Amino acid sequence: MKTKIDIVISHIKEQIDNKKLISGSRLPSVRQLAKKLGFSVSTVVEAYARMQAELIIESRAGSGYYVSGVSEIPVLESVVQYEREIDPLWISRQSLEAKNEIYKPGCGWLPSDWMSETSVRKGLKQALKLDSRFLTDYPAPQGHSGLRKTIAQRKKNQDIHVNMNQILLTDSGTQAIDLVFRHLLNAGDVILVDDPCYFNFQALIKVHQLQYIAVPFTENGPDLHAFEKALQLKPKLYLTNSGIHNPTGACLSIQHAYQIAKMAEQANLVIIEDDIFADFEFIAAPRYAALAGFQHVIQIGSFSKTLSASIRTGYIISHQDQIEELINLRIATNFSCNHLNAEIIYHILNDTNYIKSIERLKIRLNKAMKETINKLEKYHILPWTIPKAGLFLWCHLPENIDAAELSKFCLKHGVILAPGNSFSHSSGASQFMRFNIAQMMHQKIFDVIEAGIHHCLDHDAR
Amino acid sequence: MKTKIDIVISHIKEQIDNKKLISGSRLPSVRQLAKKLGFSVSTVVEAYARMQAELIIESRAGSGYYVSGVSEIPVLESVVQYEREIDPLWISRQSLEAKNEIYKPGCGWLPSDWMSETSVRKGLKQALKLDSRFLTDYPAPQGHSGLRKTIAQRKKNQDIHVNMNQILLTDSGTQAIDLVFRHLLNAGDVILVDDPCYFNFQALIKVHQLQYIAVPFTENGPDLHAFEKALQLKPKLYLTNSGIHNPTGACLSIQHAYQIAKMAEQANLVIIEDDIFADFEFIAAPRYAALAGFQHVIQIGSFSKTLSASIRTGYIISHQDQIEELINLRIATNFSCNHLNAEIIYHILNDTNYIKSIERLKIRLNKAMKETINKLEKYHILPWTIPKAGLFLWCHLPENIDAAELSKFCLKHGVILAPGNSFSHSSGASQFMRFNIAQMMHQKIFDVIEAGIHHCLDHDAR
Repeated sequence: MKTKIDIVISHIKEQIDNKKLISGSRLPSVRQLAKKLGFSVSTVVEAYARMQAELIIESRAGSGYYVSGVSEIPVLESVVQYEREIDPLWISRQSLEAKNEIYKPGCGWLPSDWMSETSVRKGLKQALKLDSRFLTDYPAPQGHSGLRKTIAQRKKNQDIHVNMNQILLTDSGTQAIDLVFRHLLNAGDVILVDDPCYFNFQALIKVHQLQYIAVPFTENGPDLHAFEKALQLKPKLYLTNSGIHNPTGACLSIQHAYQIAKMAEQANLVIIEDDIFADFEFIAAPRYAALAGFQHVIQIGSFSKTLSASIRTGYIISHQDQIEELINLRIATNFSCNHLNAEIIYHILNDTNYIKSIERLKIRLNKAMKETINKLEKYHILPWTIPKAGLFLWCHLPENIDAAELSKFCLKHGVILAPGNSFSHSSGASQFMRFNIAQMMHQKIFDVIEAGIHHCLDHDAR
Repeated sequence: MKTKIDIVISHIKEQIDNKKLISGSRLPSVRQLAKKLGFSVSTVVEAYARMQAELIIESRAGSGYYVSGVSEIPVLESVVQYEREIDPLWISRQSLEAKNEIYKPGCGWLPSDWMSETSVRKGLKQALKLDSRFLTDYPAPQGHSGLRKTIAQRKKNQDIHVNMNQILLTDSGTQAIDLVFRHLLNAGDVILVDDPCYFNFQALIKVHQLQYIAVPFTENGPDLHAFEKALQLKPKLYLTNSGIHNPTGACLSIQHAYQIAKMAEQANLVIIEDDIFADFEFIAAPRYAALAGFQHVIQIGSFSKTLSASIRTGYIISHQDQIEELINLRIATNFSCNHLNAEIIYHILNDTNYIKSIERLKIRLNKAMKETINKLEKYHILPWTIPKAGLFLWCHLPENIDAAELSKFCLKHGVILAPGNSFSHSSGASQFMRFNIAQMMHQKIFDVIEAGIHHCLDHDAR
C-alpha cells in the first residue's frame, strides 16, 4: 500500500514525466504542497528529502527545491532528419523567403518598421563621403578599425575590457560561429548546447558533423548538475546565447555564470557566447567573458537584430593569438571583408539618434511583451518564464496540444510558427512554442492560433 | 659511347631538367635542332620518336612536338609549410595590410584609382532610394533577384544560358568556392588544380584538408596528357580559372576545353571554373560551362576585380537542385546574405557609365601590359606568354635569379612581389614571377627590382 510520502513522490514524478515540471523548474514550497494535498508539512519534507537523495530534485539555499537535470549519463546526439514542418532549417528558409502577406511570429527578427530606417539612411549617406580608396580597394582583413574600437567601447557596459586587436569582423554572426567551429573543431567532436537552443545551431552542428549534448536550460542558466555530468564526455566547447537566451528569453544568473565558468575552466572547455541580443537588454546580464576573460571564452555577435539584417557585419572577440589564427582562416575562406557595411554600421552605432531609437524600441518591445502574454493567456498559452527583455516568449501550450501539429495547421493558414521541438532535439518541448512578440501585432495570428487549437483538440478527440 | 641520337635526347632532357622547357613547351622543330646541333634531320627525328615512346614528349598534329606532362603516376600533394616570404597566405595578408607607401605588384587587384569611383558612388546613391523593408529586413537567402537576372544576362557573352534560379549569391568569390568545397568534398579527398594556380586556392585546400594534384598549365589550358593521367587517382573535382588564367595570363583554347570537358564527364569529375577575371577580356575565351552545361560544371565569380573590393558579392551558378542544397548550406553557415551590396552592384552593372569605364580600363591595361613587358625586358625578365588581356604577366627571370630570393630583397625595400613558387607547389616555378601590371606604374619598383637582381647575382657569385 502507498504511504502518504509515496503519494507526494508520485505526484511530483508525474508532473516531471508529463513535463509540467522540467529540469530546473522550481517545486511548490513544502507548505504549499502540504496544504494542496491535505498532508502534514513533515510528510512533504520527508518526500522531498527522499527525492533529493535520488537526485531527482535539488535544494538551493534560501530559494527552495528545483527539479534536477538529467540524472543518467548524458546522451550524445547527432542531428537527425526532421519532419519538414518542424525542420529548423526549413523554418528559417520559409521565414526568409516568406512573402509579405505571410505572418511569421516564428521568425527571429523584428518587422522592418520596428527598426530605425532613418539611422540606416544616415549611415549610408555618411558612407558616401568615404575616401575613394575605401570604396574600391580591398580592406584590411581584420576589418574596419573604427568599428572595432566602437565594439570594444560598447563592451564596457558588460564589464568586458578588450582592445580592438582582440576583435575580428566577419560578415555575420552565423559566419563568426562557423569560423570558430572550423578553427577549433573536427568532425566527430562533442560540443554542448542548451536545451532548448537557437535552431540554426543545429544546422551548423550538422554541417560540421559534430555530436552534441543538450544541457537543460533553466530560468537562471544551464542546469549545473547536468552540465557537470556532460563534461564526462569531454566536450570541446559550449555554445550558448549570452544576455537574453534564445528561445526561452531567460537570463543567466551571476551564480550560474560563476559555476559554469569554473567548471569550463577546469575541464578546459571553451565557452562561445553569442551576444546577438545584447542591445535589447535593459540591464546587462552577466557575461562569461566578463567573469573569466578570453582565455576560455570567445564572444561573437552581430548587429542584425537591432540595426539592419541587410547590412551585415558580425564579430569575434577572443585573445589576440587566436584572432591572428582566425584572420588567416578568414583570408583562406573569404579573402577579405566587407568594408562598406562596416563603415555604415560604424556611423549608425555612433549616431545619438540611433541610441535613442534603441531606447524607444526596448520600451515598445516591453509593451508588446505584456500585451502578447495577456492575449495568449486567453488560449491557455502560458509563458515558461517572463522575459526581462527581448523579443522571444517561450510558452507552454494547453494540455493535449502538440506544437508541431499546431504549427502545421497555422502554416496552412499563412502563419509561420516555431514549435518547441525545433529548438529541443531531446523532444522535451513538444508542448512548447517560441513566439516573436514583435511579429504578433496582428489579430489574424491569434485567430489562426485559436482555430488551430480547436483543430488539434477535435483531431485528438476523434 | 653516346650516339648522336643519345646526344639529342640528353640535350632536350637537360633543358627539361633545368626548366628551360617545361611541361607543355613546344620543342624546336626537327629542322631547327638538326641545324643547331649539326646533325642530320633523320637523327633528330629518331631521337624525338624515342622520347615520344618514353612519353617524355608528345606530337600534336600539324603543330610539332611538345614536352609531355608528368610521365610518371601523378603525385598527390598536401599543402606544406612555406618559408614566410613565399607563403601564399602571408603574401595575401601583407598585401591586404600594406600601408600606402608600400608598392605591391605582387597583389591580385587594381589600384583604387583605376576603378570607377563615380560608378560606385552612383550605385550607393541608388541604394539610398531602397524601400525600407530592403534596408533593414533579412533578404531572401538566394540573394537579390535583379542582380541574379543581370548575371544571367551577362553570361550570354560567354554562350552560357542560365536562368536566375540557377544562381546563388554569396559574400565573395572565395566564399563561393568554399561553399562548393564544403558541399562536395570531405577531408582527404583528391582534387585537381593547375600548376601554377592562384595561391589562395592552396590556403583553401589546407583548410579543407584535401590532397591535390597540380596539372601543368600550358599556353592553351591544362596539359591533356597530365590531366588524363591524374584522373587515375580519382579526383573529385578540378578547380581552375576560366577566361584569363591566374597567374599565367594564358587562355583556354577551344580544343583543350573540349578534351578536358569530355574527360571530366567520363570520369564524373566536377569542373569548378572561377570566372573572376571575366570583365577584363576583350573576347571571351571558351568556358567549360558553355560546352558542357551545368551537370558537370559549376561556375563561380565575383565583382571584386573590376567594380569594388569593398562592396563584395560573389555568385555560384550550377544546376537548380544543387543550388537548392547550397542555399541550405548557406543558411546554416551564414544565415542570410548581404542585400545592400547586391543592390549597389546591381545598379552599377546596369549603369552605362560603368560599362564605358570598363572599356577604357581594358585599353589602359593593354597599354600598361605593353609598357611593362618592354621595361622588364631590359632586365631580361621575359613573359612566358603574352596575355591577351588582364592584369597578370607571368615572367621568366634571368638565369641564376631565384624568385624567392629576389622577393625577399624587394620586400625589404618596400616592394611586395609574388614569386613563382607561391603559385606552384611542384616548385617548377622558382625562376618565375607574377607581375600585376596595373601596380607597376612606379619607376621605384623597377629600380628596386634592378637592385635586387644585382644583389642576387652578387650573392650567387660569392
